[in-house]
This record gives sequence, structure tokens and C-alpha cells, in this order.
Amino acid sequence: MECQLELLEEISEEELDLHIETLGPCKVDTPLQKDPLCYVTDDMRVSLKLSEAYLEKSLSQGKLPPTAELAGPRPKIYFDPSKTRAAIVTCGGLCPGINDVIRSIVLTLYYSYGVRHIFGIRYGLQGFIPKYGHDVLELTPEVVSNIHELGGTILGTSRGHQPIEEIVDALERMNVQILFMIGGDGTFRAANKIKEEIDKRQLKIAVVAVPKTIDNDIFFISKTFGFDTAVEMACQAIRCAHTEAIAAPNGIGLVKVMGRYSGFIAAAATLARKEVNFCLIPEEDFDIEPPQGLLAALERRLETRKHAVIVVAEGAGQKYVRPDPPEYDASGNLKLGDIGKFLKEKIKEYFTQKGIEIYLRYIDPSYIIRSVPAIVDDRIYCGFLGQYATHAAMAGKTGLMVSYLNDRYIHVPLKLAVTRRKHVNLKSRFWQSVLESTGQPPLKNT
Amino acid sequence: MECQLELLEEISEEELDLHIETLGPCKVDTPLQKDPLCYVTDDMRVSLKLSEAYLEKSLSQGKLPPTAELAGPRPKIYFDPSKTRAAIVTCGGLCPGINDVIRSIVLTLYYSYGVRHIFGIRYGLQGFIPKYGHDVLELTPEVVSNIHELGGTILGTSRGHQPIEEIVDALERMNVQILFMIGGDGTFRAANKIKEEIDKRQLKIAVVAVPKTIDNDIFFISKTFGFDTAVEMACQAIRCAHTEAIAAPNGIGLVKVMGRYSGFIAAAATLARKEVNFCLIPEEDFDIEPPQGLLAALERRLETRKHAVIVVAEGAGQKYVRPDPPEYDASGNLKLGDIGKFLKEKIKEYFTQKGIEIYLRYIDPSYIIRSVPAIVDDRIYCGFLGQYATHAAMAGKTGLMVSYLNDRYIHVPLKLAVTRRKHVNLKSRFWQSVLESTGQPPLKNT
Amino acid sequence: MECQLELLEEISEEELDLHIETLGPCKVDTPLQKDPLCYVTDDMRVSLKLSEAYLEKSLSQGKLPPTAELAGPRPKIYFDPSKTRAAIVTCGGLCPGINDVIRSIVLTLYYSYGVRHIFGIRYGLQGFIPKYGHDVLELTPEVVSNIHELGGTILGTSRGHQPIEEIVDALERMNVQILFMIGGDGTFRAANKIKEEIDKRQLKIAVVAVPKTIDNDIFFISKTFGFDTAVEMACQAIRCAHTEAIAAPNGIGLVKVMGRYSGFIAAAATLARKEVNFCLIPEEDFDIEPPQGLLAALERRLETRKHAVIVVAEGAGQKYVRPDPPEYDASGNLKLGDIGKFLKEKIKEYFTQKGIEIYLRYIDPSYIIRSVPAIVDDRIYCGFLGQYATHAAMAGKTGLMVSYLNDRYIHVPLKLAVTRRKHVNLKSRFWQSVLESTGQPPLKNT
Amino acid sequence: MECQLELLEEISEEELDLHIETLGPCKVDTPLQKDPLCYVTDDMRVSLKLSEAYLEKSLSQGKLPPTAELAGPRPKIYFDPSKTRAAIVTCGGLCPGINDVIRSIVLTLYYSYGVRHIFGIRYGLQGFIPKYGHDVLELTPEVVSNIHELGGTILGTSRGHQPIEEIVDALERMNVQILFMIGGDGTFRAANKIKEEIDKRQLKIAVVAVPKTIDNDIFFISKTFGFDTAVEMACQAIRCAHTEAIAAPNGIGLVKVMGRYSGFIAAAATLARKEVNFCLIPEEDFDIEPPQGLLAALERRLETRKHAVIVVAEGAGQKYVRPDPPEYDASGNLKLGDIGKFLKEKIKEYFTQKGIEIYLRYIDPSYIIRSVPAIVDDRIYCGFLGQYATHAAMAGKTGLMVSYLNDRYIHVPLKLAVTRRKHVNLKSRFWQSVLESTGQPPLKNT
Repeated sequence: MECQLELLEEISEEELDLHIETLGPCKVDTPLQKDPLCYVTDDMRVSLKLSEAYLEKSLSQGKLPPTAELAGPRPKIYFDPSKTRAAIVTCGGLCPGINDVIRSIVLTLYYSYGVRHIFGIRYGLQGFIPKYGHDVLELTPEVVSNIHELGGTILGTSRGHQPIEEIVDALERMNVQILFMIGGDGTFRAANKIKEEIDKRQLKIAVVAVPKTIDNDIFFISKTFGFDTAVEMACQAIRCAHTEAIAAPNGIGLVKVMGRYSGFIAAAATLARKEVNFCLIPEEDFDIEPPQGLLAALERRLETRKHAVIVVAEGAGQKYVRPDPPEYDASGNLKLGDIGKFLKEKIKEYFTQKGIEIYLRYIDPSYIIRSVPAIVDDRIYCGFLGQYATHAAMAGKTGLMVSYLNDRYIHVPLKLAVTRRKHVNLKSRFWQSVLESTGQPPLKNT
Repeated sequence: MECQLELLEEISEEELDLHIETLGPCKVDTPLQKDPLCYVTDDMRVSLKLSEAYLEKSLSQGKLPPTAELAGPRPKIYFDPSKTRAAIVTCGGLCPGINDVIRSIVLTLYYSYGVRHIFGIRYGLQGFIPKYGHDVLELTPEVVSNIHELGGTILGTSRGHQPIEEIVDALERMNVQILFMIGGDGTFRAANKIKEEIDKRQLKIAVVAVPKTIDNDIFFISKTFGFDTAVEMACQAIRCAHTEAIAAPNGIGLVKVMGRYSGFIAAAATLARKEVNFCLIPEEDFDIEPPQGLLAALERRLETRKHAVIVVAEGAGQKYVRPDPPEYDASGNLKLGDIGKFLKEKIKEYFTQKGIEIYLRYIDPSYIIRSVPAIVDDRIYCGFLGQYATHAAMAGKTGLMVSYLNDRYIHVPLKLAVTRRKHVNLKSRFWQSVLESTGQPPLKNT
Repeated sequence: MECQLELLEEISEEELDLHIETLGPCKVDTPLQKDPLCYVTDDMRVSLKLSEAYLEKSLSQGKLPPTAELAGPRPKIYFDPSKTRAAIVTCGGLCPGINDVIRSIVLTLYYSYGVRHIFGIRYGLQGFIPKYGHDVLELTPEVVSNIHELGGTILGTSRGHQPIEEIVDALERMNVQILFMIGGDGTFRAANKIKEEIDKRQLKIAVVAVPKTIDNDIFFISKTFGFDTAVEMACQAIRCAHTEAIAAPNGIGLVKVMGRYSGFIAAAATLARKEVNFCLIPEEDFDIEPPQGLLAALERRLETRKHAVIVVAEGAGQKYVRPDPPEYDASGNLKLGDIGKFLKEKIKEYFTQKGIEIYLRYIDPSYIIRSVPAIVDDRIYCGFLGQYATHAAMAGKTGLMVSYLNDRYIHVPLKLAVTRRKHVNLKSRFWQSVLESTGQPPLKNT
Repeated sequence: MECQLELLEEISEEELDLHIETLGPCKVDTPLQKDPLCYVTDDMRVSLKLSEAYLEKSLSQGKLPPTAELAGPRPKIYFDPSKTRAAIVTCGGLCPGINDVIRSIVLTLYYSYGVRHIFGIRYGLQGFIPKYGHDVLELTPEVVSNIHELGGTILGTSRGHQPIEEIVDALERMNVQILFMIGGDGTFRAANKIKEEIDKRQLKIAVVAVPKTIDNDIFFISKTFGFDTAVEMACQAIRCAHTEAIAAPNGIGLVKVMGRYSGFIAAAATLARKEVNFCLIPEEDFDIEPPQGLLAALERRLETRKHAVIVVAEGAGQKYVRPDPPEYDASGNLKLGDIGKFLKEKIKEYFTQKGIEIYLRYIDPSYIIRSVPAIVDDRIYCGFLGQYATHAAMAGKTGLMVSYLNDRYIHVPLKLAVTRRKHVNLKSRFWQSVLESTGQPPLKNT
């Protein structure tokens, strides 16, 4: 599904400098038995800009557009599989498909390359730190054979920072050559620091990330895994909210969905369930007070149609509910105020004052959206992400995330991936389609 | 699924006097084209007591056990189909399968009996009261043909009392001979009063109820429709809570499900998802404080197993959260305090004080449990309930609900149905199985 | 869901002599920690006849109606748990919920009684026979913890007879005291013979069966486990057939579902998906030729409605397709001819001859109906069946199946269970409802 | 999900001449109320080649790579909405999501542009031909409001050719300016001829196609709508086949899925359900005879693992089953032989001859894969395809299909779209991943 049109066209070419670091030249022949045509070499790069106008300008200046390295198995690899030890760690919140990624990495390492020592780090970065006392889980094809049927992560996860030195100490102690990190932008930042510490110690350890975020807010990737599953689940909640809303005179269904900084789940679910009348996301500021704000618009909706469905992303309308002074969680993320509960109360209050009887049903599906097993579409996607991450790592590439962009799997440097967050572009046809679907007016008092 | 073993054996025979009122002798030949063996006559009654010991005692006293009238099509009916006008009203909260019941009544009236005037009353009892201005919806086979694919009720519903006189005025004005009421015990009480008013006015209007309650707490029926669907949905939330709980060190998944006075959903879902460790229901009092209460038991669980899943029915533990003084909703139901939120906060507080880091995930699926379309099992059940309700009404029976008990469809007088609520019997093997599944100790300080 | 009304009322009381055999008097105190009220004693029996008329007649003759023994935990048990060794075997075709039953038996044996030696016999009765070389699978709570998420049986299964002596030899060799057999009527017959051989050798081995049949055709049980799940799946196929049928001019959707001798799946799915126009089951003979047979009726349907949906049970219409001479499979079951393919060809031929263009879509979901994991409703039911089977076995009862009838769990002697098969009663309101739903005429030429 | 890597890089630039025809210059201001930045103009084109090497070569030759026109709303449109009459026709086999596309076109025409006359043509191209007597269905927002909950197409469909002149006669008679055709390559060819006839008659009628194929075999589009849903359903069948296979000694699960010329469903489902051991597609020739063919490979698999799962696309292995002489269906498509049945029989025969007892379970989910409602992912995609088709048509573009390629919606001339079919590239990493997942050897005797 399209979430952002042409998101790369607006970025400067300086920023799009996508060259990937490697631990050194690859000298080992890959054990992969493939047709030579199936191998990818480092000079197989693809343009990140597709606009004819841009290409025309480049051409007139005699230079090439910015490009990214294609992902894929290399004919020569850096690590000798028989001696390689790999570790996998999953960080941050749950997301459908994590186990599929773990499974894919393990199976590719084991069967395609012959790597026999694969460690699962328990409970995120905590698993590296001796004081927590978490055991390591040895990962074999047998251990991972059915884990894709389960939601969550068999490794466990945690939030929050851990001392980078201790993490690298653990990698040295375990004699690990490859670290796979499945996580979001906080994890990417940690991965970067781990890589720098590795460089400082002159170790030969590759750090490869697989981007994971339920909010789909990582840049340089079309869509993160698990997103389709999350939207599927959000739609179930919205369907119920609509059923409740139409069952009562002046029925209002209010659904809060995930989306801290980016409203992709709210927007995509709105497109899928056309019965949403107001879609509120963090990217678009809105007022609640009359004459133009949400409450008056809702009143007008009820007058004409007798019911309404509102979907609000958890990060929307924070100007009303943000804790003051700001608070932060273990990972350093700003704590959000509860916009769902706030709206629920404000709506009740408003209509009570107006003497209009309403029936408001508030649904917060919360973790139901992210703890389910992945749907088939996401499952296949996770399989490829795990494979490409493994190919990158075995080739000695480091400090990167694997990505899918413009119908191709590519390598994106972590440094670049953390420079910005992906947001719903309010000028995009994606968001315009949402507005057309809801028919909501601009909810701003001027 | 068994929810209560032998629930009728414990009730006195006086109470079990199940004779049904009729509007008068049936004189019209039924238009149903059935094999004569398929008809049921009023003298086909079934015993409500099955215990050999009981029967032995009855035998020795020369009397028969208490019996109920079998539901089913009668060879002669009371109303002349060509002149009959019927109305259907749905009251109270949503429940999976309401539309299936409506659809079944309409199709049976229309195709089996040839009744051509069927009115859908909008928004519950409000629909009878002129001041609300709700239109009536004419119900035909075409209108109801696909409504079973939707959750909720196409008629809309509402809570709260309406003046009985005005309701019967409306029935007279509409010239209605049959009123089908789909609702719970509040609706049954209203139905009874409507029937009394009808009697007082010496009208010939039959009032037939179809029992509806998401909580499965109506007596004299094995299981109410929609219950299996609700448990299916509750299980999805519990699965997610478990996934979240095992993903973090000291992870706790806390799920609140429906169940105001009876914990059937919580108990049945616990039996289906064996990963629940504490199942808290309104019927069983529990303490939260040490040494025997929930918090200490939870701590012991975390010590040994590192994670826990708690399912709490909304009506459980009200001694901690009940509003004081008591508050009531529009239907006169006692308002409940929010035990889910209370437990969430108490658990966090307790472990913070103990210096134990926990990760609590709270899931309140709320309306998701009741607003979905019915699963196939419930759909078939609703089809029969609607048919039997129609057969009863056409035969001129009144003041009854249709019921399924001991593998048979029967008629139960409304007066009897409201005498008591069905609860989880703490002595039953049903509840013992729940306790065996969770392994939870008695959570009572002595 | 009701499948058969009052099925027991029509059977003679002689046949209903339901006394259960035991290995001997129970002398061991049960380790179950239950409230005394939760125990069941052998004299707690329930009437199998509920009809008032019947009871009145019994009363007048001074005798009691036939009764069955209630299932449930006994205060005293026969086997000493610390020394008990149990085996579980699954036979015949797959059915949703088998793993749930296995899991329930293992958990009840292990946690409720403390039995530590539980063997899973692989691939049905083959697993007892040395020449096949199948290993035994040791069953522990850990092994069975997640098996309910999977369809099928983790033990494997097979069809066909095996020498009874060798089976009992194996039981002796393994020193097993309890044998749980999950299977259908073929398995019941084998179980009976095993029991007789055990008796002959004067061994103290209890044989307890859990009835399993996707066709729901076992007598003395309201509904077999997995049936609701199977109907749910059949409905998916029918929904697709209907979608195909209405998408083309003169579209015909033809669905074959399981049901060798009994058409319960076809009938129940027809009730759930009201769009079926012809429901063909083994119990009701039908012709296909004009003037009254299926083909002409189908033509009339197409003339008026332009599309049709036909559901046929695999055992229906065998007079047209039965192999001649009869053939038998490994278990001695008569091989069926393929009525689905036959109808598909006959329908095409008929309309081709008539010069009427039709679009026939044939769907045979086959194993998709039976190989899926159980829905929640069935899952809970399987949990109870496993528990009650275990309680019966530990109490030293033998030669029985556990059953659920008239809202109670009871013990039924295997000898009785195999005397007849449960069929759709063509005089029942269940079948009448199917006919009302389809509107199909009698398809018989006179 | 990635199905084909870099499929466009291999095509000559001559072929990629993607300029779109229009009916004439656009002169009407669009009624769309959008931010100017949201409009797309015809000079906004995107490169179809992304390879750096290619771009470098182009640059050195001073020319631009081949480009395609971006889809999207134009600031000026060709048709005056108040006078526009549009028609929608759906052709060929069913596919999940057709109703979503219809709904999106209708809602966009109606609400975004103000078009009030929209006709649904019944039963494919037949609906244009008077002799069939099919009525036209007037499409309004009300008619389409809930159709996305249903599978199939509310318009009906048919296969086969119809006289082009009569079709254009009908368009003239109905005074239609826009014709939307939802169909596959056969439909595209018809659309092209219709367009040519329109040109010949110098009519101003736009013909816009939305690509539909369950097989995902249309070129110049990343993935066709409904494909993800179809794979989801295929996976359910495979899961059942695996469950059956492991339940019996030497169990074999054989599943036939759709895919006449392209094995995308088989391949994608294999990636999603890793338990497949042999994936047979039309693109890869295979033998069945020893020593290297399927039968011997299957025997080796059974020897080591005791069970096997085979997925075969219906178009695979046609060299064994193709009717001779070739036969064609109403649309002129070559009729396929039944490879599923052939394999089933050959496998049984082979192992019978070898004296090896096997248990083969054959599942042909057939129409179950394509007649279901779309999953959320496909639903959103269909919404965009319908919108972009409408934007293109209102702008007076004709003879094109809307497409999604390289993360952008574009216009593709129909002439180009029919030049080739998309196949699974046997050299691609996509297919290599399938082979790695199954572990299947090359099944070719040399």
C-alpha cells in the first residue's frame, strides 16, 4: 500500500549519500549455490530519485543522481561461516513479524551459509548486561521452526539505554562476529554507538539492523514490517466502533490507535474502513473548541447523520494533554498525554452542556494491534528482510539497515536512517485521500 | 460448552412452575406445510429435573417432576397470518447475533406464516415514544437478507425506562398483534409490565422475548446467543496479553472483560486460553493485600515464572471501587467502579514500593467483544431462537421467553425468568476447572 | 447448536441400560483438592428420558426411567497415581480439537492426579505393533503446552485394523494401566475387543474412549468435538460458492462437504448460510432426473432466480455412484462414489442438452474442513472431555466413552455407543428448518 | 511483497515508450478542492530505470531514461462533470477486491467530481449486447456503500468475446463518455479494440482499465490487487495439507493453486508457509520420472523426513496433461490439463509399485482462493487504483491502465501492457528464496 508518494524526491542529494561501510574486502567464496546472475555486487546501485525533471537537471550538470547499494547475496563474503558466531537482539515495543525475522535470519545463517553458532540475546539490550542475569538462548532451526505462528518475540525485549562498553564487552566475551539488531530509531542510535565502540576497539564485528516500528515512521523504507497487520487489527476496532455508533441515536464511536509521531495507522485504517468521519493524527494540528474545532464539527455531523466515528492517533492533539513539565520513559521518549480519554471527556462535557443526549463508545485496542502474529503479506516481507540482513552481514557490511524502497531491497546507512522520521505528508495524495474519505473540514479556529 | 452443571436440580419445584399463558384457544390452521410428526402440542412437556434421586423421591410420593412446555410449531395457531401485524424491538447493549435473530423472525413470519406487516421499532423502547420522533422501519425479507453479516442491530437500541402506557398506546395505534422483544432482564421486566397493561386493556397482543445478554447471566437457559462469539473475542485479547507478558522480564498482562454480575466470559476464556494465571470474577470475593491477596500471589508467581496473565471481569472486586454513594445508569443498573484501572495502579504501586521492576500491559477490549458479527455456531442458534419465538407468538402464547435447556427448546414464563440471575457456581466442576487451569490459590486473607 | 431434538425419547428403555463397568472397588483417596460438593459419586445418575408423558407412564408402573452415570471426579479412585502409567492413542481421520483433548488428558493426569508416566502412541493402532517400528512419544506438560494452536494430532493417526492380541501385548509390555482412545465407531469396536482381551487375561487396565467424528454421527452424544469448527469452515466454502454463483448469469455453486452416513455438516452449514438452495444428505433419498428430480428443480430455480447454490454431503446420492461391486478401505468402511463430480457432470450435461448456458463452479474443500485448529467453543469442550475421561479412568471405569448429553457430562458404555449411528432425523424440526431455509421441494419422482 | 526484482531493468527503452493518449486538451477546472501542490501535471514523469549503470550510460549519451506519466488529479480536466456519464464493467474471473475498486470509482466520480450518472454493466461484455437482455445497474454512493464487505463483483462478470461494434453502439446509445474496464489481459485487448473503434467513429469516449488478475501476471505493475488475499487463502490450504501430511506415516499433502502461466501464488505461499517441500510452477519445467524427477525426489524426502508437502500451480507440468489437440475456452484461453489429479494418481501408482504405503491428501481450494472479500491491505490498494483511474479518465486520458510501480502510481498504455506477461524470473532472488525454503533439487532428468 502506498503510504507516501515520492518521499525521496524532496530530499537534498547531499543527504542522500548512501555509501555503506564494510569491515574489509571480501575474500571468502560464498557457500551459496546460486546461478551467477543471482549475485549482487557492490557496484549494482539504484537511483533514489526517479523524477524526470530531476534527472534532466542532473544530466545537464553532467552528474549522476544519488544512489543506494542493492541488497542481496554477494559472490564473495567476509566471514568464514564455519568460524562465525552471530547474535540477534530484539529491542523496543512488540510488532507483528519479529519472530518471522528471527526465523529467517537463523535459517539463512544455518542452511544457506552453514553458520552453526547463533545466539539469541534475551530481553533486548539488558541481555548483554551481566547484572540482569538473563541467559542466552541458543538458536537452531529446530528452535525457530514454529515461532512464526506466535506474536511477540521469543527473545523478549526491553526499553531503555544500557552502557555501550558493557555491550561490546559482551560481544567480545561471546566472540561474536555479527550482531543483528531488530528495533526502531532508538535501537538505531544504540547500534551506531555500538559500531563506533567496535571501531574504537578495532574489532571485526558487523552490526546490521532490521527496522521495526509499529508506527511505520522510519525514513528510507517504504513500509515497515508488521504495519499491514497492525492496520488490519485497527480496522477491526473501527468496525466495532461504527457498529456501536449506528446502534444508538447520536452514537459516537471513538477509537484510539498507535502512532506517537506519525499517523500512518490511523490514516491507513481510515482508508480501509470508509466509515470514519474524523481522522486525527499528530502531523495535523487541530482545535477542539468552536466555531471550527472538533466539537462543533462533530455536532454538525450528528445533526445531519445521527452518528459519527472518530479515529485518533495516540500522538495527536498533544497540545491539550502533554504532561507539563515533560516526562520521559526509560528509552528517553517523551511521554504522551492520553488524548483518547481527553476527547472522551471533552465530548461528553460539550454535549451535556448543550443538552444533547449522546452515546459515546470509546475503544482503545492498545496492544491488541501489535501483539498478534503477522498476516501472510508481512510474513513474506519479514522473510526477505531477514535474508537480506544476513547477506549484508556475511559480506562484512556494517552500520546499516536493510530496506525496501522503490520495489527494491537496498542497504541504508544507520547514520542516515536516524536523521529524520517519516511523517504523513499533509500535501500528499495519501492524506488527501483520507480527507476525501472522511469528509472532515479543517478543524482549526483562525 | 458447559457453563453450569445441573443448574436446575437445586431449585425448588414450586419455583419451577413453568406454565405458559396464552391469549386464547388456537383456532386457525397453521399454513406450515409440515409432516404431522413435526408439530408440537401443548401437552408435550419435558422434565426440568433429571436426577435419579429426585425422580425416585417424586415417584415415591406419586407425583411428577416439574416440567416445561416444548417450543415448536403448533398444528393450530391463534393469529390469522393475513391480518397479523408484528413488531420487533431490540433493547439494551449490543450482542453478537441480534441481527440473526431479527432476520430469522422476519423470514419465519413472512415465508412460513405469510405475515406481511412487520415493523422494526428503532432505538429500543424509545421507538414507541412519540417525543423521540424515531421512524419505524418496515421489515421485509429483502431488508434483512444480508444483515447477519453485520454486528450490532439494524434497529438500533437504547437503555432506560419508557412509560409503559405510551408503549401500549403505540402498539394499539400501530394495530400490532405480536411484539417481539430482544433483550435482557431489564427488558424482561418491561415486557412483563407491557403484558400486564395489555391484559388490563383486554387487548389481544402477544409479547414474546428472546433472551439477550453478553454476560450469559439469564437463568433458565443453558447459554445465551452471542456468548461463544464474545468468548472467542476475549480470547484474542488474552492471547495478546500473554504475548506481551512473556516478552518482558516480569511482564504482566492484565485484561478486563465484560461480566457485571457473572464471570462467565472471564471463566470460559480462561478455560480456552490456558495461559491465564488469575481469573477474577464477581462471584468470588478476593483481597488484594498481603499475605494472601492478589498482590502477594502475583509476586510469588513472578518469582517463579517471570510473567503472569490476569483476567478480571468488570464486576469483580467491586468492594474496592464501587462508587459511594452508589450511582445508577439510565436503565437503573448500578454503576460499576473501574476494577481494571484500579488493579493496574495497585499493581504498579506495589511493585514500585518493593523495588521490583515490572512491565504491566493493560488491555481493555471493551466493545470489541460484543460488536462483531456472530460466529457460525451462534448464527445457527439465533436462527432457531427466532423461529421458535415466532412459532410461540403465532400460537398466541404471551409473556414468555424462548429458551434452550437440556438440549431442547422450551418456553419459559417471563415472570420466572426474572426471579434470579445465573451465576458461576463456585462449587461447580466448571469453576473448579478454571481454578485447576490457572492454579490460582484462594486470594483471601483470613 | 441443536442437531437432533429429543433423540433419546424414541429409544426403548431396554436399550438404554447404561451401567458402566469398573475394574473393582475404589480404595485410594483422590489427590484432587476439591470442595466435597464437587465430587460425583456413582449413584448420581440422570434420567435419559425427559418427556412428561413417558415419566407419567413410568410413574403409573412404579418404575424409574433409564438413567446414566454422571461423569466427574470421584472422592476415591482406583489407581495409585504414583504408580500409574497411561497411554493415549488417536485413530481414524483428523478432526479439529484432537490436540486439545490430548493436552487436557495430559495436564489433568499430571497436575490433578500426579501421574508422571504418560505415553503417546504414534500413528494410531499401528503404534502398538512392533513391525511398524514407530517410537512412543513421552507426553509431559511441556510437550503439550502449545499443541492446541495446531490442527491435526501430534501423535499421528492411521486407519485400519491391527491384531488385538498384539495391542494388549504392547500394553502389558509397557505396563500401562490406562488406555485413552480418541476415535470414532471403528475405534470403539476395537476398544471393545481390547477390553475383552484385557478381561480374558484378567488384567487391570482401564479403556476409556473420547468420541471423535467430523460427521457428528455418534449416538448418545449431543455433538462431537470439532463439529462447530468444521461447520465454520464449510460455511467459508459455501460463501465462496454463492459469490461465484451470483457473479455469472445462470451461475451454479456446487459444494461437497464431509458426511459419509449423516448429513449434519451439510445441514448445519445450510442453516448458517441461508443462501443454500439445495441441501443433499445421505439420509434423504433424491432423484436427479425430471420431472421431480434435482435437475429439473435446478432449472426452475435458475429460471426464476438466475443462480443457485447446492451443498451435497459426500455420502448423499450413493445410489448413483456407489462402486459396484462394493469396495472397502483399510478400516473396512465402504468406499463412497464421488457424488460431487457426478453431479457436476450431470448438471453440465443436462443444461448443454437443453441449450442453456450455465456457469458451474465446483468447490470441494475436503481436508480444509477438518485439519484446522479448533475454534474457542470446541476448545473448551475438548478440555472438559479430556478431564472427564481422566476422572473416569482414574476411578477404574472401563469400556466407556465420555459424553455430553442434556447439558450434562455422562458415561456411556462403548457397547451401547456402537449400537447405532446418529442420523439427521428427517421428521425433526432441525431438518424442517433446513428445508424451510432452502425452500427445496421433495426431489423424488413418484 | 517483492515478487520480481528490477523487472524493468531488462527491457529495452524502445519498448518502454510510455506516452499516454488523451482525448484532447483539458479545459475544465477541476472541482477537486486540493492544495495546488497535490495536483499532478502531465510533465511530472518518473524514470522506469533505476540502475546507476544504466543512468550513467544514458548520461554519457546525453539522453534521458524512459519515463512514465505520474497518475493523480489534474488541475484541469477534460469532461464537464455535470454532463458526464460513466460506465463500469468487470470482466473475466473473480478476484478479491473488485467491489472495492467499483466502490472507489463511484465515490470518487460522485463526491470528488460531481458526476451523477454512473452505470454498472452487468455480466461483463455481455451487458453491452442487447440479445442477452441484461439490465444496467445504476450506481450511486448508497448502492456501493457496503459492497466491499462482499467478495466477487456486484456487477457480475463473464468470459468470452463480444462484437466490438455492438459494444461501441451501446456506449453511444447510453451516451457514455467514460468506460472503466476492470479485467486482465483479455480485457485489455478488448479495451484496445474498443478504443480503436471509438477513434474510428471519432467519438470522445475515454477507456481506462484497472488491471485485475488473480495470477499477478500482468506486466508493468508491481502486484495486482487481490493477490495478497489470494496468497493468504492459499496458505490456509497449505497449512491443512501439512497438518494432514504429518499426521500419517509417509503422509503427503498435495495442494493445487491458481496460476495458469505464472506461479506467483504458489511461490509466495511457499515463502509464507515454510513447510512446503516442492513448489512446482509453470515457469520451471520438471520431470516426474526417476532418477531426477519428482517421484524419486519425493521418495528420498519420505525416506528421511517421513512426510512431504507439494504445492503445484495449475499451469505447471502441462507437458504431461495438456489436451491434445489443444482446446480453448470462451475467451480463447488454452484449456489446461489437470496437473493436480495427474500428480495424485502418478504418486499413488509409483509408491504402490514400490510397495511403499503412503497417505496422500489432495487439496484443491479452487475458487475459495479468489471469491473471498479482500484483506485490508488489498482494500486500501483498490481504493487508490479506483481513485487514480477516475482522475485519469476525468482528465480525458484513454487507452491506459493505472499501475503501481516503484512505489508510485503511474499510467501505462494498454498497448504496452499486453506486450508481455509477467513471469516468475527463475534467476531472481525471489525464486531462489523459494528454492532455499523448499530445499528442492532441480527436478530434471538430463
